[in-house]
Amino acid sequence: MANEFDLIEKYFLPLTGGFPGALGLKDDAAIIESDPEYSFIVTKDAIVENVHFLKFDPALTIGQKLMGVNLSDLAAMGALPYAYFLSVILPKSTSENWVKEFCAGIKIAIGKYGGVVSGGDSVRHDGPITLSLTAIGKVKKGRALKRSGAKCGDLIFVSGSIGSAYLGLQILQGKLSLKNKSLERTLISSYQIPVPRIELGNKLIGVASACIDISDGLLAELNHICKLSGQGAEIYMENIPMVDGWALPYPSPLPEGEGILSMITAGDDYELLFTVPESKREKIEELQSIVPITEIGRLTNSGELIVLDKHGQQVKISKFGYEH
Amino acid sequence: MANEFDLIEKYFLPLTGGFPGALGLKDDAAIIESDPEYSFIVTKDAIVENVHFLKFDPALTIGQKLMGVNLSDLAAMGALPYAYFLSVILPKSTSENWVKEFCAGIKIAIGKYGGVVSGGDSVRHDGPITLSLTAIGKVKKGRALKRSGAKCGDLIFVSGSIGSAYLGLQILQGKLSLKNKSLERTLISSYQIPVPRIELGNKLIGVASACIDISDGLLAELNHICKLSGQGAEIYMENIPMVDGWALPYPSPLPEGEGILSMITAGDDYELLFTVPESKREKIEELQSIVPITEIGRLTNSGELIVLDKHGQQVKISKFGYEH
Repeated sequence: MANEFDLIEKYFLPLTGGFPGALGLKDDAAIIESDPEYSFIVTKDAIVENVHFLKFDPALTIGQKLMGVNLSDLAAMGALPYAYFLSVILPKSTSENWVKEFCAGIKIAIGKYGGVVSGGDSVRHDGPITLSLTAIGKVKKGRALKRSGAKCGDLIFVSGSIGSAYLGLQILQGKLSLKNKSLERTLISSYQIPVPRIELGNKLIGVASACIDISDGLLAELNHICKLSGQGAEIYMENIPMVDGWALPYPSPLPEGEGILSMITAGDDYELLFTVPESKREKIEELQSIVPITEIGRLTNSGELIVLDKHGQQVKISKFGYEH
Repeated sequence: MANEFDLIEKYFLPLTGGFPGALGLKDDAAIIESDPEYSFIVTKDAIVENVHFLKFDPALTIGQKLMGVNLSDLAAMGALPYAYFLSVILPKSTSENWVKEFCAGIKIAIGKYGGVVSGGDSVRHDGPITLSLTAIGKVKKGRALKRSGAKCGDLIFVSGSIGSAYLGLQILQGKLSLKNKSLERTLISSYQIPVPRIELGNKLIGVASACIDISDGLLAELNHICKLSGQGAEIYMENIPMVDGWALPYPSPLPEGEGILSMITAGDDYELLFTVPESKREKIEELQSIVPITEIGRLTNSGELIVLDKHGQQVKISKFGYEH
């Protein structure tokens, strides 16, 4: 294994894309020039082996996942990616090839979503692979989407589909096996490589009254919007866009609804969940070309979040989402 | 142990000091408004149990160390602290009291050096305590100190004294014991609570031609300045301000010079090492009231870094510093 400086030179320096503020990764810190028309949006999420990814997930997908979970936070505020800072904390046994593949994963995400690596550090220790990213995005001053701001009567939308990362994890853990191997691969990919909705988030500026990304489960995230906006909500379970294949008998034939309930509380979807005043409903039609968007409910003044089944009956929910 | 949201509310939220951009730590990311007169300086350093601190170091000092090592990077570029983002990755066994004390340590550093916590995340895992900070500072546009820029003939200065953190670690590891227990405590404190030279760094703007903080050893850091500035340097070993007590027989009576050599290559000093054109020497006098500053050598056109003993003889150096 090359030493720290060689690794930086070989694998991390190319990720800066020659950005002058990175100072060639040779200085104590990076220089980010401010831009009077924009605010910076800053997020910092770590992912850890056996918590957020599995020991044998490929380094190429781990790099993409680290980027995806952070970019998803930028997407939720409507920001476009600008700069990344990376802490790579590795067991002493991790090979140089792992580092190379991990950086290739970062590079794929940069190619898709933009931004440059501008700094960070690396540590060798006795412990699990621990990766922390700080992502800085830019958004026009005063225009960032927030979790608060939703009003009673606003419509609730979600991008993409729900549950695929959850099913992918079950497959990787050997708890679920599908005959359709192509679907299996798609579901696994959803778990390993979350797709941040950067373009959608940015286009929701001026349209959405509140927005959040789904990391801890659809219901938990909607509950955050409700609480921070001082609203209740009702969700029509039939309308939630479940991933293809969700209704497969899993883990064994389930009582009606229970399969969905696992998936809308499990998290790791990294879809955007957002509210829109009814007067702007047609704007959402224009955004369907970026990613499918589905209306799943509306905000109410009941003060609580309720889920209704296809008969209009309230579904009993024991907990809204994944708790760390 | 309280859950994640309760811990954030109880211990992390007070560290935001009510900063509006932190959005009450309730949103996906923070909003940092740009300021056309300033550049942002961004650094990110993690510290890990058994690598950067010892398992039984008090949480109160670990919080201060995490802040200190990052603030030292801001100091080296002349920046004043503005905002912090914190990743706290803890074994499942870590107590709530540990979190409370750790946050109290962060608060002490904020009280001394300024800035506010604006975001971050927490993870529970099976592994060592792993703490990552992103520190954002501000400096007048175009005025940040850099490692490059030193010229042949420039004088080399260092703040404070060298070697105390190294001796402190030896004491904590049971490899060194002093009769003077008060000195022992001072040395241990140097290891556990590095003092970032924020005020000095800021005042060096317009004075220093290059600046770096000493994390990997005085010689290694000077070598960085030399390489990035395209210069050589000579250091007068007699002039290096060693910490009081360094000459104690350690680890056993040493050949002349060997004790110093350990300390100028060991690192963790977090003092500033900087170069100044001879024409500005008197400016340094004015800064002595902040922290003692010592002239230890000068830059040369030899292309290499050499250390001279009191007889003017070159000291043989096998390696410049600590390698990760």
